[in-house]
Amino acid sequence: MDATHSASAIASAVRRGEVSAVEVTRATLDHIAQYDPRYNSFTTVTAERALQEAAAVDAARARGETLPPLAGVPYAVKNLFDIAGLPTLAGSKINQQQPPASADAHLVRAMHQAGALLLGALNMDEYAYGFTTENHHYGPSRNPHDPTRSAGGSSGGSAAAVAAGLVALSLGSDTNGSVRVPSSMCGLFGLKPTYGALSLQGMFPFVHSFDHAGLFARSAEDLATCFAVLRGEKVAAPYQDMPHYRMARLGGYFEQGDAQAQAAVDAVCQALQVTQVVELPEVARARSAAYLITASEGGNRHLDRLRTQAADFDPLTRPRLAAGTTLPAAWYIQAQRLRTWFYAQAMQLFAHTDVLIAPATPCCAQPLGQTELRIQGSRLPLRPNMGMFTQPISFIGLPVVAVPLHLPGQLPIAVQLIGPPGQETRLLQLAHHLQTLSVCSAPVARN
Amino acid sequence: MDATHSASAIASAVRRGEVSAVEVTRATLDHIAQYDPRYNSFTTVTAERALQEAAAVDAARARGETLPPLAGVPYAVKNLFDIAGLPTLAGSKINQQQPPASADAHLVRAMHQAGALLLGALNMDEYAYGFTTENHHYGPSRNPHDPTRSAGGSSGGSAAAVAAGLVALSLGSDTNGSVRVPSSMCGLFGLKPTYGALSLQGMFPFVHSFDHAGLFARSAEDLATCFAVLRGEKVAAPYQDMPHYRMARLGGYFEQGDAQAQAAVDAVCQALQVTQVVELPEVARARSAAYLITASEGGNRHLDRLRTQAADFDPLTRPRLAAGTTLPAAWYIQAQRLRTWFYAQAMQLFAHTDVLIAPATPCCAQPLGQTELRIQGSRLPLRPNMGMFTQPISFIGLPVVAVPLHLPGQLPIAVQLIGPPGQETRLLQLAHHLQTLSVCSAPVARN
Repeated sequence: MDATHSASAIASAVRRGEVSAVEVTRATLDHIAQYDPRYNSFTTVTAERALQEAAAVDAARARGETLPPLAGVPYAVKNLFDIAGLPTLAGSKINQQQPPASADAHLVRAMHQAGALLLGALNMDEYAYGFTTENHHYGPSRNPHDPTRSAGGSSGGSAAAVAAGLVALSLGSDTNGSVRVPSSMCGLFGLKPTYGALSLQGMFPFVHSFDHAGLFARSAEDLATCFAVLRGEKVAAPYQDMPHYRMARLGGYFEQGDAQAQAAVDAVCQALQVTQVVELPEVARARSAAYLITASEGGNRHLDRLRTQAADFDPLTRPRLAAGTTLPAAWYIQAQRLRTWFYAQAMQLFAHTDVLIAPATPCCAQPLGQTELRIQGSRLPLRPNMGMFTQPISFIGLPVVAVPLHLPGQLPIAVQLIGPPGQETRLLQLAHHLQTLSVCSAPVARN
Repeated sequence: MDATHSASAIASAVRRGEVSAVEVTRATLDHIAQYDPRYNSFTTVTAERALQEAAAVDAARARGETLPPLAGVPYAVKNLFDIAGLPTLAGSKINQQQPPASADAHLVRAMHQAGALLLGALNMDEYAYGFTTENHHYGPSRNPHDPTRSAGGSSGGSAAAVAAGLVALSLGSDTNGSVRVPSSMCGLFGLKPTYGALSLQGMFPFVHSFDHAGLFARSAEDLATCFAVLRGEKVAAPYQDMPHYRMARLGGYFEQGDAQAQAAVDAVCQALQVTQVVELPEVARARSAAYLITASEGGNRHLDRLRTQAADFDPLTRPRLAAGTTLPAAWYIQAQRLRTWFYAQAMQLFAHTDVLIAPATPCCAQPLGQTELRIQGSRLPLRPNMGMFTQPISFIGLPVVAVPLHLPGQLPIAVQLIGPPGQETRLLQLAHHLQTLSVCSAPVARN
């Protein structure tokens, strides 16, 4: 029993005594040692801590205690989460000079209390500003479905580690798509909850206005269990009947993806018998506003470091952040005003719709180093445009579950299930339903 | 009976039938016609509307109805409040081209429902960006205590009209001190309530982050009655016993005023037996941050007009707003961050203090046209620095009652009574107490 199994399978095997948590940990550490050189998903492996946490789980079981819901489940976190005793890199070289974190981030504490075993810290785009995890300091993370390709970003290490079965669960963050893009690239279930639904305490910030914590798993059920743990809520019983949801596909702007992206949405809509198409107005402007706020808040966040240590930034991140320091406040304020307006437009759609369906990315994982995307006759810069469908949604804080599709002969790609604020459970239930229909799945890949 | 009397005296005389509301209105209109050419407080006199509202009050009384709390009381509003049928000037020439407002602002409706009589719209600094009401389009408002001097701003017309007894009450707005500065210059009781406590609906905006509606009266009791009316709350019975409040004087930064400003605070503290001095940290930085946010949000607000109609702006306002359009978003965001921090610092003081006492202005009303202020050996630009003590307080939305002192042989000056959010009643009670002690008063002036 190891991390190629689901979190629920591992936790129940540990609970029944079929395997010890220490055995799970040793097997997991072996897999990381064997496979991660290929994927470069980990920047630090916390072997000692994982073994200690595992021993504590086994001891609790030996004492006859009821084990918590994720007892013995290996997981890891994007390296912008504080881990007591380690500097919080946030993908940067500069942060190596930071003192070690004095305590775990809030969500790491929640996972610890739920019995999960922390295996380490995971690679990311520097300071979370990117969609490809092409990190100049720590090397690129590679896609377990095709290691010549990107795992997506900025939570690329988080996605690669789960896709390769090196952990059963991982935590990431999503400001403009940093959970949903790598979910799509690596073919995983990913959750970006409602803005503010998960504590950001102890996470290195990027854009205060729409930073979200998020999570990855290879099943909707594991995603739901982990989300309940992170929220400090009781883990609900497995899903029962599917209620009737009013669902619609997002048209217009969201039809700009390639044939595979469109086919993935087609498949989901067909399975769910969704025929209605609705449109959000001014999506391109909303995305521009998301970029203005991202650049402005990111620029403000890193202003001192740019002044004193500009040479130590990743060349892919430096000019974006530096440019952000020069944007006029009048634009930033206008972008925040548009955000309020765009949120109201979305809420009007939700007055008569429960779930909106849209592609997660305009295409599947592209080769590392590639800088251009050709879609529907247009040539677009690749790195920013992998987030073209995710940015307008996180901009207004809506919860999204990314559901992965493995179409025959193609790399995986994901679809976004988007709900009104607070409706994560509905979206997770729908994701589970798509899994039971075999439309969506997230097999381990170790190519 | 006319507007030189208090609102409570007028309302009770009308209620008892000693005078009709129409008689009050005619007397008020006569006074405006006679005295306002001297003070230039009105930009529009709504004689017809006032007479109609008065006739409706008299008719209600004739039918035996119970009259509402401000029945028959003449008031007027800063010309940034929507008045149905008039363009909302906000002190500008540009806004003359606006269509007439289709409805009254929320607070004007509240006053109408309380039986008050709207006499007109009052002069202000263009777009509320100033502390002297030296308006190039509509001329300066003049101080009824000395017409060669400023009435303060930006609600200068609102203060001059009440000080000259042309209305019993007036509404204004306060972003950085625009109620408290003219209260100090004209020797009035002024209330800038907690941020968000009064609706801004139908008011021409300036700085979304800390725009407040506010009000002027010549007694604390009138201020309290009017505030209750504006809030849509029941008017409370006259004040009873003074509870024991923990009070302190603000030291450090707030000791930069001239001898008169200090003497005014001394007099209030002596009357209230306040000896403790406390300090807020980084007040100068807080004020700088207030300016950054003001300039940025003001610049954003007027960006289109600056692009197309720059020549039509007041020369005192144009360069300030234009400069605001160029500030970096990184600074604006930093200023908002400081605001959160500074609010927390103030709340720490309020953990063991109920009321903080500080000067409202660094000096009394200065001659119109004067551009420099000499205080404690420093030479400062006059126009922005009249708000040096008010800006850091509205920046964090705290409620303030300005209480006026008339020290022998001097022009009036006011002191700020500052409370934690929502504690207007406490401050109004204290203002009333200072009035009963004859420390504070607001006599009509028609010099």
